Amino acid sequence: MTTTTFRTVRGPAEPTGSAITTLRPLPPGSATLDGGLWGHRLRVNREASVPEGLGHLREYGNLRNLEIAAGLAEGEATGPIFADSDVHKWLEAAAWEYGREPDEALLADILEVTRAVAGAQAPDGYLDSVPQLRGVERYSDLPWSHEHYCAGHLMQAAVAQVRATGRRDLLDVAVRLADHLVETFGDGDGQLREVDGHPVIETALVELYRETGTRAYLDLARWFVEARGTGIIESHGKQPTYFSDRVRVREATTAEGHAVRAVYLGAGATDVAVETGDRELLAALERQYAAMVDGKQYLTGGLGSRWDGESFGDPHELPNDRAYAETCAAIGAVQWAWRLLLATGDARYADQIERMLLNGFLSGLSLAGTEYFYVNPLQVRTGAHPEEERNPAAGRRPWFGCACCPPNIMRTLSSLEGYLATVADGTLQVHQYAPGTIAAELPGGTLRVRVETGYPYTGRVTLHVEEAPEGAGLALRVPHWADGATLDGAPVAAGGYATVGRALAANDAVVLELPVAPRLTAADPRVDDVRGCVAIERGPLVYALEQADQEAGAVVDDVRIDASAALGDQERPDLLGGTVVVTATGTVQPRPDAADGPYRPASAPVPAAAGTVTLRAIPYHLWANRGPQAMRVWVPVA
Amino acid sequence: MTTTTFRTVRGPAEPTGSAITTLRPLPPGSATLDGGLWGHRLRVNREASVPEGLGHLREYGNLRNLEIAAGLAEGEATGPIFADSDVHKWLEAAAWEYGREPDEALLADILEVTRAVAGAQAPDGYLDSVPQLRGVERYSDLPWSHEHYCAGHLMQAAVAQVRATGRRDLLDVAVRLADHLVETFGDGDGQLREVDGHPVIETALVELYRETGTRAYLDLARWFVEARGTGIIESHGKQPTYFSDRVRVREATTAEGHAVRAVYLGAGATDVAVETGDRELLAALERQYAAMVDGKQYLTGGLGSRWDGESFGDPHELPNDRAYAETCAAIGAVQWAWRLLLATGDARYADQIERMLLNGFLSGLSLAGTEYFYVNPLQVRTGAHPEEERNPAAGRRPWFGCACCPPNIMRTLSSLEGYLATVADGTLQVHQYAPGTIAAELPGGTLRVRVETGYPYTGRVTLHVEEAPEGAGLALRVPHWADGATLDGAPVAAGGYATVGRALAANDAVVLELPVAPRLTAADPRVDDVRGCVAIERGPLVYALEQADQEAGAVVDDVRIDASAALGDQERPDLLGGTVVVTATGTVQPRPDAADGPYRPASAPVPAAAGTVTLRAIPYHLWANRGPQAMRVWVPVA
Repeated sequence: MTTTTFRTVRGPAEPTGSAITTLRPLPPGSATLDGGLWGHRLRVNREASVPEGLGHLREYGNLRNLEIAAGLAEGEATGPIFADSDVHKWLEAAAWEYGREPDEALLADILEVTRAVAGAQAPDGYLDSVPQLRGVERYSDLPWSHEHYCAGHLMQAAVAQVRATGRRDLLDVAVRLADHLVETFGDGDGQLREVDGHPVIETALVELYRETGTRAYLDLARWFVEARGTGIIESHGKQPTYFSDRVRVREATTAEGHAVRAVYLGAGATDVAVETGDRELLAALERQYAAMVDGKQYLTGGLGSRWDGESFGDPHELPNDRAYAETCAAIGAVQWAWRLLLATGDARYADQIERMLLNGFLSGLSLAGTEYFYVNPLQVRTGAHPEEERNPAAGRRPWFGCACCPPNIMRTLSSLEGYLATVADGTLQVHQYAPGTIAAELPGGTLRVRVETGYPYTGRVTLHVEEAPEGAGLALRVPHWADGATLDGAPVAAGGYATVGRALAANDAVVLELPVAPRLTAADPRVDDVRGCVAIERGPLVYALEQADQEAGAVVDDVRIDASAALGDQERPDLLGGTVVVTATGTVQPRPDAADGPYRPASAPVPAAAGTVTLRAIPYHLWANRGPQAMRVWVPVA
Repeated sequence: MTTTTFRTVRGPAEPTGSAITTLRPLPPGSATLDGGLWGHRLRVNREASVPEGLGHLREYGNLRNLEIAAGLAEGEATGPIFADSDVHKWLEAAAWEYGREPDEALLADILEVTRAVAGAQAPDGYLDSVPQLRGVERYSDLPWSHEHYCAGHLMQAAVAQVRATGRRDLLDVAVRLADHLVETFGDGDGQLREVDGHPVIETALVELYRETGTRAYLDLARWFVEARGTGIIESHGKQPTYFSDRVRVREATTAEGHAVRAVYLGAGATDVAVETGDRELLAALERQYAAMVDGKQYLTGGLGSRWDGESFGDPHELPNDRAYAETCAAIGAVQWAWRLLLATGDARYADQIERMLLNGFLSGLSLAGTEYFYVNPLQVRTGAHPEEERNPAAGRRPWFGCACCPPNIMRTLSSLEGYLATVADGTLQVHQYAPGTIAAELPGGTLRVRVETGYPYTGRVTLHVEEAPEGAGLALRVPHWADGATLDGAPVAAGGYATVGRALAANDAVVLELPVAPRLTAADPRVDDVRGCVAIERGPLVYALEQADQEAGAVVDDVRIDASAALGDQERPDLLGGTVVVTATGTVQPRPDAADGPYRPASAPVPAAAGTVTLRAIPYHLWANRGPQAMRVWVPVA
């Protein structure tokens, strides 16, 4: 096995030179996050989540399964049939972490886990330890076995490992596995015409193609994308919609079915579209993404309105209390939006990434980095029943029997620096704002900026130019909500990119001012679940009322907001690791006397509220760090 | 096998003389329904649903399973493990039908099916054809095998058969099965300390005790009730709440978990409480029922807010679009309410029965009696995705892979006459109003009345006294909504029973006038899902807007109601088999331009409606008889 170390740190999703992308991700080691909200979260991820995650993978038997299959241990397989995938996701996270800052202990862990994975591989390249150990016939139940799903996560980990550590250990395994899949699946004689019930292999094969140049991987990814939607999946109790198998990807008009599966497929199909130059497919994916945003996305960026089937609902079906909004759906949608951003250069996708990352994704992780939400609702009532494992009313949990989200959060944070900026036409586009540095190789040389900002809490983003070639361009995203934004003091339009009009030079500073004053947001009248309600936002952050912050008597279930009163904000360095609290004026709706159960004549007077209260809201992503309690994002208007 | 025919037609739930009930059901053959809404539905049930139901049981293999087990056919078991239960429910329905009006062809069918059931019984009394045929070890997975559930439905069918046809064929089978259970389950040496995951056996054993006098059946029912809630069920992936096993029945404060299981358990525990004189248990059950009504019941009487686990939600979690509100939950809750009515004499339970029967139960059945809803939502949007088998957006279905609801509807309709009236203290209580006759043996002789009414569409209920002994009392339920009701012209209070104050004599007529003018109903402010909405009711009927009835352009998703404008009503003998349409004044909310998906600044103006429309509402139970389309019960106020 080749173990030559060659450092080529790159990020996730690297289109080839021939891909039809508008923007290109930054080349090796270009962007760093080193302070503020994200800097803190990345440090916690590295110091707590990733090490504890490996412990959980040992404790729950995921790693053991691979060790047994590798002949390194004895015993029987434990856990769900796709248990390997969590190991692979952890390997991906650990690789990106090593790329961010080499660490020999971390590398030792990576290599130990990689040895187990490599050792478990069958001579012909097949690798999935649980089916192997349980003697399950290969691909005998692909709708549910997740064999390609596990393979996909392995390939993604392998690509991360070679990009971030330069080591080919896992890449060699991934290549043998991919070669086995190329041989086994497709339209050829003796090949299996089947697709996995859970996408991810599509993105993974395209990335492996990008890394290795092996066209057959791209072709197989394309085959999987094209085969889907033809009723190819024999569904065993679930309808084709669940598997994104009701309609072909290029004919679909919206996102439907299991949310995580749908957005992973969207990401993979976008990769296929740009690498094969398939503009029709790309247009279809843009259309689907837009329809998803128009009627099926929570204000937090959360996706998936139904617990049943972990699925999208009908358009405008967006319940707050029973939102599923799986953390992994936000992760997959960030991946999809990033690929559409690269393809189109449309700032709306960068807005989307910000919305999801700072709200419905980050809510999935506790401040300490050691507890997780699978499900991210927008409302929990007082006394909500906390029993089920995934029920947020019980608070975040250290791990899950079907782990899924925790290592997915880890790999997303570990690769987050890859989503900050791009280049195109001699210009650096900065999409996300956080303290750190960004360097881009432009035609005339290196453009290097140091970003200083308290964003997302404060609106000033200062980019100190450390180095700039002649003719360097700099474009800064102005979020859709940022009416009144200025660039170097001049007004710029919200919703798009503002280009610095002057020549850039070292020691220059560019100042973007984004108005982050708190604001109230309403919803389309067709969103029945938030009728008569508003939500508080401040900059890119969605806010929530949590019971712990309220005055005595201001029960979150009963409060009303005065939408005409001014909102206030208050820096609170002492609260939840440091945050800004938004205050609003409200009332407490008295509960009417019991009548016919909760029903009463419409003409019966509703008791009036007495006096006002000050409502205090915290960023949604910070809720549930102080024990289970009531919370709501949408607040009824008084 | 004894086949002596002795006619003793009685209804469901016959407490013994020593039970602590306040009211007593009517003795043999006392009440009939012969016209109006219910008379029509009962005829359709007899002429269409019951015969077609037997056809479906043959087609889906349920009957075949029993025939194979009986050695009358060859093959393998098909369908879910509890497939027998649908046969037993059909047998119960058919028995009550025979009791209503003997018919030799129907009896031949009953006996043919009974022979298969009897023939399938093992020598020691065990009987459940699917586990028998599949070689599943008895009681090896009682949380999911539904073996007691199947046994319970068999016992209920057997009791119905003997009460309605006088034949003991099935009763002998039931007794052998019950004796086997008495021997097998309990605290004794070598006995199994387990309970079934799905209640129904509790009610069934008490009824079998009532029929046979065998005290051991009551004792076993009590044992099952008392054992539950101690974490006795090893739950295999579901939490104890799902199985009503989190807290003991006598300590529970609300209904929770799987709705059908919870209400069946409530009914059975009530039977146990009254037969054992356990007032503490009875009080606990009253408390649970009240809490269920206060925060977990839809206006339609529907129960179960969540598809996930087919379960109750948190208090005030009552989504319209994703209401599960299984038809069987309404059926089980009618059985529970009936038992609590007998026990307490409290009119609220009769109000409950009416609400459920005329709304959330009857919606489960098409007008033609041949198509069914499993799930009964209060809103379906335009273009809702119709794919899943149980999704009401696809319209009612002729049958289900897990049939469950259809034969449950049949047996409820076939025994409906048993729920009309009771006697106590020389007085006849009439709880439900429909054309027909009611006869009661009072201390001084027979009180016989003929009921004439267009109820629930018209408010006048005339009771023609055909025969009345001296001192006979007559009490008539005045529903909770009936403010302004009169009895023989004098005002009577809503919510309770009005007693006729004068002596009754033959050829006398008693006239109850119930005000059925349409009205608007609102909900407790804590029911977030109907904020800013009202519902239309008329008498006991909940109304709904269905797209087919609306003016051009009045898309149900977008309409608003003027809550201050007068409601109208209109007899429509031509529509949906004859109904009364309620009209209201409304507007159509224009859709705002797309902004940030469905979200927009709260300060942005919402486009104003232009002009008014007339909204037309039909009884909720009549929706979905004209193909899949949008529908809503709760209408936003303009």
